[in-house]
Amino acid sequence: MPQILSTSDADFEARFATLLTLKREDATEVDDEAAAIIADVRTRGDAALVELTERFDRVTLTPGTLAFSPDEIENHIAQVSSEDREALSLAAARIRAYHERQVPQDASWTDPHGAVLGWRWGPIEAAGLYVPGGTASYPSSVLMNAIPAQVAGVKRLVVTVPTPDGIVNPLVLLATRLSGVDTVYRVGGAQAIAALAYGTETIAAVDKITGPGNAWVAAAKRRVFGRVGIDMIAGPSEILVIADKDNDPEWIALDLLSQAEHDTDAQSILITTDAGLAAAVGQAVEELLQTLDRRDIAAASWRDNGAIVTVADLGEAAALADQIASEHLELCVADPEALAANIAHAGAMFLGKWTPEAIGDYVGGPNHVLPTARSARFSSGLSVLDFMKRTTMARMTPAALAAIGFAAERLAMSEGLQAHGQSVTARLSRLNGPRR
Amino acid sequence: MPQILSTSDADFEARFATLLTLKREDATEVDDEAAAIIADVRTRGDAALVELTERFDRVTLTPGTLAFSPDEIENHIAQVSSEDREALSLAAARIRAYHERQVPQDASWTDPHGAVLGWRWGPIEAAGLYVPGGTASYPSSVLMNAIPAQVAGVKRLVVTVPTPDGIVNPLVLLATRLSGVDTVYRVGGAQAIAALAYGTETIAAVDKITGPGNAWVAAAKRRVFGRVGIDMIAGPSEILVIADKDNDPEWIALDLLSQAEHDTDAQSILITTDAGLAAAVGQAVEELLQTLDRRDIAAASWRDNGAIVTVADLGEAAALADQIASEHLELCVADPEALAANIAHAGAMFLGKWTPEAIGDYVGGPNHVLPTARSARFSSGLSVLDFMKRTTMARMTPAALAAIGFAAERLAMSEGLQAHGQSVTARLSRLNGPRR
Repeated sequence: MPQILSTSDADFEARFATLLTLKREDATEVDDEAAAIIADVRTRGDAALVELTERFDRVTLTPGTLAFSPDEIENHIAQVSSEDREALSLAAARIRAYHERQVPQDASWTDPHGAVLGWRWGPIEAAGLYVPGGTASYPSSVLMNAIPAQVAGVKRLVVTVPTPDGIVNPLVLLATRLSGVDTVYRVGGAQAIAALAYGTETIAAVDKITGPGNAWVAAAKRRVFGRVGIDMIAGPSEILVIADKDNDPEWIALDLLSQAEHDTDAQSILITTDAGLAAAVGQAVEELLQTLDRRDIAAASWRDNGAIVTVADLGEAAALADQIASEHLELCVADPEALAANIAHAGAMFLGKWTPEAIGDYVGGPNHVLPTARSARFSSGLSVLDFMKRTTMARMTPAALAAIGFAAERLAMSEGLQAHGQSVTARLSRLNGPRR
Repeated sequence: MPQILSTSDADFEARFATLLTLKREDATEVDDEAAAIIADVRTRGDAALVELTERFDRVTLTPGTLAFSPDEIENHIAQVSSEDREALSLAAARIRAYHERQVPQDASWTDPHGAVLGWRWGPIEAAGLYVPGGTASYPSSVLMNAIPAQVAGVKRLVVTVPTPDGIVNPLVLLATRLSGVDTVYRVGGAQAIAALAYGTETIAAVDKITGPGNAWVAAAKRRVFGRVGIDMIAGPSEILVIADKDNDPEWIALDLLSQAEHDTDAQSILITTDAGLAAAVGQAVEELLQTLDRRDIAAASWRDNGAIVTVADLGEAAALADQIASEHLELCVADPEALAANIAHAGAMFLGKWTPEAIGDYVGGPNHVLPTARSARFSSGLSVLDFMKRTTMARMTPAALAAIGFAAERLAMSEGLQAHGQSVTARLSRLNGPRR
């Protein structure tokens, strides 16, 4: 059974605080192993990649077979059913349509002194997308990472995906085709991150690495941060459902379970104003759990990290939601827009009972790569902006420099930075007319 | 003497590559010390802060005097000259005007199936700005960090600044007043970062930490990344000047020296199409160096990291500039806009000979917190966006779910995530009418 809390409990504050801090710290040994793998790939390049792939994935490669050939990709994709193809194509189209609205605008204006100011956005040149292998090899994640990069205008977009025991996911390869990926390398783990960050004889280094992965991948991404850009380090998935009494307990239970089935560390929380719904959802979860193939994972997640919280009103619910700052927030209430307006922190909001979180995982349009572990307080889901960067622009005229240069001279001197000041003074001294 | 290169040299590629990789790796012992300090502050809170401040800054504090009182701030500010006050106020006004244009727009639209999609931006609630003490205590950096936060709408904005031997910079305190800072704490180093990230009895934890600092501060920021947001880890400052023959060698020399005087690790590079200018600038740097108070620092930087590169034409210059991806890029050429259009990677561009980089450090308007060490390939300078986060929004209708739900069901099943699929199926089964 998960935790059952009520804001009217005497010990509510303490128990709720515990719920917020269930997340674990990183393991040091994983970090050390990732560091050793990165050093090996930096030193030995392709040879290290081939050896490590043999050891971890039991797959024998050569530099020439690190990448899937176009024919191989076509042959795998040919196995995809027309239903799956239609579903994935619809998802790609909707994700693209949403993300195309995120492309930022350049700006340029002339200030009152005649100086021209502004900024210019441009794409990152090369991006690498990590895709996990095995059961966590999700074609939807390929779309969610690659389409924003494609929309941003990234010139070279590559994927690394391990193929343990040679198992290839044809839908993953189809997803790369639907989202403009140039090359797919069949390597994974910290060794793939090292290759993307530093390059090998065969794999050219990229400028930014995104995508989910296991603990070694996360540790490796953390280590190469700065050398290349990385997206967030994603933690276990989370959902918070806020529901009033007018809900089907089974729908809510399935929404909670759809996070719980990801990972034993996932966290599903229901906050409701209705004690009857709380009990009914608790019951429905127990029953539905038994029907799931992944019931062991979902049951452990629900038991260890799940919670049902009853509150006096939606105001209390909103306040708790801001403390939780959940990755996914479902508002299954009569007026979800009004409740949304009272909640500041969430990665993605799903408004109304007809919007199950799973829609957002696949075909809603918004990105499903979202901030976890309360980081929605200060960060955002993946977007086109993550694959672009901004250069600020400034052009002074002699008149503009004459008008504002004195302040730069003065502040430079007060900071003890003489050359800074003199670089302005030298120019101002060339101008005719009175100096300030 | 710095490196003198020409693209016509036989060994140019190798020497240029060396120039790009001069930057140093982080020291492990600093990281270990920062980790120990963070652990101490997490365990002992204010008591650790007081002890560490006594040890490192030789200043005796109590929990009650960790923060400057409003009266103390007023008394220090009263010492600022009217000229300095005017200069700082002009800088604040121009930085604010620039950053107000960066406030992002919310979006909401209805898709062809009736689903409402969009996103919403909101401010981070609490931000902490680190300000170094001693000679690197720059009031301009307070403005550059705090004003974007203020414009973003951050509710609680605090500064930590060490006061070694009790020395306070009145201009720093004035800058906090001009930029909406709520509280200023006189602590520094890794201990200040720990207090901002985890909170103590007196200092409430913030959601994001920005601002420059020494190696211990950088190591501590890296360690608390994820617990809170951080800005970039800034490396030594850099400038690249591209100049044609029609330039005053002294102006260019001063621009190069204005980065060199920051730090012995700073890097100043001139690329020019004119061998005569190359020689004249080299000469001017040597002469002007002797006049600077910080000549030892600037001379070491110029000697160890500086370079003058002659190129055949501006096309070559643009290609090299993209490889360097400099923090600051000055385009001292006849048509700077045309050259800018050919260069993709730079933190900030300064167009034309009347735009010395120092203008951008103080009063231009754009932010002076910029990506270093080639990270302009994948990241941007500080902006209002760094103090806001985006929540994506989606609201399905029964009709929208009926139209697209099949794809979510299908993809969920293909990914082995049953509950995801069933959360959609349960809702679709409630709808009347034909199912796809």
